[in-house]
Amino acid sequence: MTRQQLIQNIKNKKSFLCVGLDSDMSKLPQCVLKYDEPIWEFNKRIIDSTYKYAIAYKPNVAFYESLGSKGWQALEKTVNYIRQVDPSIFIIADAKRGDIGNTSKQYAKAFFETMDFDAVTVAPYMGKDSVSPFLQFEGKWVILLALTSNEGAYDFQFIEHDNEHLYETVIKTSEKWGGNTDNMMYVVGATKAEMLSGIRQIIPDSFLLVPGVGAQGGSLAEVCKYGLNNDCGLIVNSSRGIIFASKDDNFDEVAGIKAMELRDEMKSYLNI
Amino acid sequence: MTRQQLIQNIKNKKSFLCVGLDSDMSKLPQCVLKYDEPIWEFNKRIIDSTYKYAIAYKPNVAFYESLGSKGWQALEKTVNYIRQVDPSIFIIADAKRGDIGNTSKQYAKAFFETMDFDAVTVAPYMGKDSVSPFLQFEGKWVILLALTSNEGAYDFQFIEHDNEHLYETVIKTSEKWGGNTDNMMYVVGATKAEMLSGIRQIIPDSFLLVPGVGAQGGSLAEVCKYGLNNDCGLIVNSSRGIIFASKDDNFDEVAGIKAMELRDEMKSYLNI
Repeated sequence: MTRQQLIQNIKNKKSFLCVGLDSDMSKLPQCVLKYDEPIWEFNKRIIDSTYKYAIAYKPNVAFYESLGSKGWQALEKTVNYIRQVDPSIFIIADAKRGDIGNTSKQYAKAFFETMDFDAVTVAPYMGKDSVSPFLQFEGKWVILLALTSNEGAYDFQFIEHDNEHLYETVIKTSEKWGGNTDNMMYVVGATKAEMLSGIRQIIPDSFLLVPGVGAQGGSLAEVCKYGLNNDCGLIVNSSRGIIFASKDDNFDEVAGIKAMELRDEMKSYLNI
Repeated sequence: MTRQQLIQNIKNKKSFLCVGLDSDMSKLPQCVLKYDEPIWEFNKRIIDSTYKYAIAYKPNVAFYESLGSKGWQALEKTVNYIRQVDPSIFIIADAKRGDIGNTSKQYAKAFFETMDFDAVTVAPYMGKDSVSPFLQFEGKWVILLALTSNEGAYDFQFIEHDNEHLYETVIKTSEKWGGNTDNMMYVVGATKAEMLSGIRQIIPDSFLLVPGVGAQGGSLAEVCKYGLNNDCGLIVNSSRGIIFASKDDNFDEVAGIKAMELRDEMKSYLNI
């Protein structure tokens, strides 16, 4: 998907909501457990009830991988289903991969060829040749970890050198690796929204994927205040706050309502 | 596997060789391509011909994942087969995973419960809560990326602050996270062997997983000179130099000879 297509979808839906399909087997509603493939059944119903309000879905691969090859089948089916329901949706593999060049190329193939994801999250520690292979696929995106939403972010990402933090160095250095705003986005956690204004000074135009709104404590208003740019420039993810809002038989309806509420709030902040 | 068991296996086999099962579909010998599951057939023959000389195997997960759920099936079968052929083998998932706490736990489950790996490589960027969940499994190991063998290592791992490099900070900080020498090892690339003496000053007792010998240009002699400790303390990986040494019908025999040669060289350096 091109940047222009993504922006158009945001305009059309008046939303920059990403629904995180962190479909943890141990948290699924009772009513889907009777099916042969509970995660797949769950995802299908969540997608049906939320796609009108969302411009992106983000399965976190860990929840599928933990089930082995069966989990991967559920992931493959989920991606295909999203494509079928709404081809304009931006599909993100939250995989946090990264390896030496010839190996990263295999990960890129996994997500961009074997499966039809639009983007994959990548960890920066191994540097340029671990990220570049993902940037070679036309219309596909890298979303690089910059400032994550978890407590452990403080262990290394805030290390200071030459008057900047490591996460700032990661952004400045990696910006030169690809077609920047055309195939690279950054993960910036909503729990650290006040740092978004500093980040916007480095990369005013880039899209940011912002997890951590809702269950992790981040505020959508704060994220928008510091993070929105002239093209929106944000994809804000909510997972548990939507998909596990209810465990009753009508969990999908409740998820749809939660997604709609977030879309409505987003609409009020959106300037495009 | 406990540290003592690992050391005993090294003593028994007079080897600290890890065979990297980077079974790239596009590089497999012609003769295995006629099978339904070429990677599985290839791995089986490589394992049969090399296990006497190796104390560890390390499939890089990317080469399996790139084939989707079928690749994961090949990975599952490979792990089970190694266990069956020689239960003393240390099996490493070279996966370079890492995510926020509740998600890393799912990755840990994938490799330690759904599959029976002994260790998984983990990326440090997201800090303590992304690594800790892997340390909660009795007898299982984290192998944390410290100093990687690739060119991109120079992008961030050598960033200097407070008179130390980022990779040194990663080692010093993470050392306090687990039972250290009992469930944590570190990746240190063979291409940067001269830095091993500095690393040995920080972590004299820890095991190091050293990739990059052979095809990537690292020297075994140099690695041993700077890296060996009183318990050996090294697991040295060779992938392409063994598994793709020949593409003829007898590729497995050639792989066996290459593994034996490396074992013989290791034996000459080994002091336990």
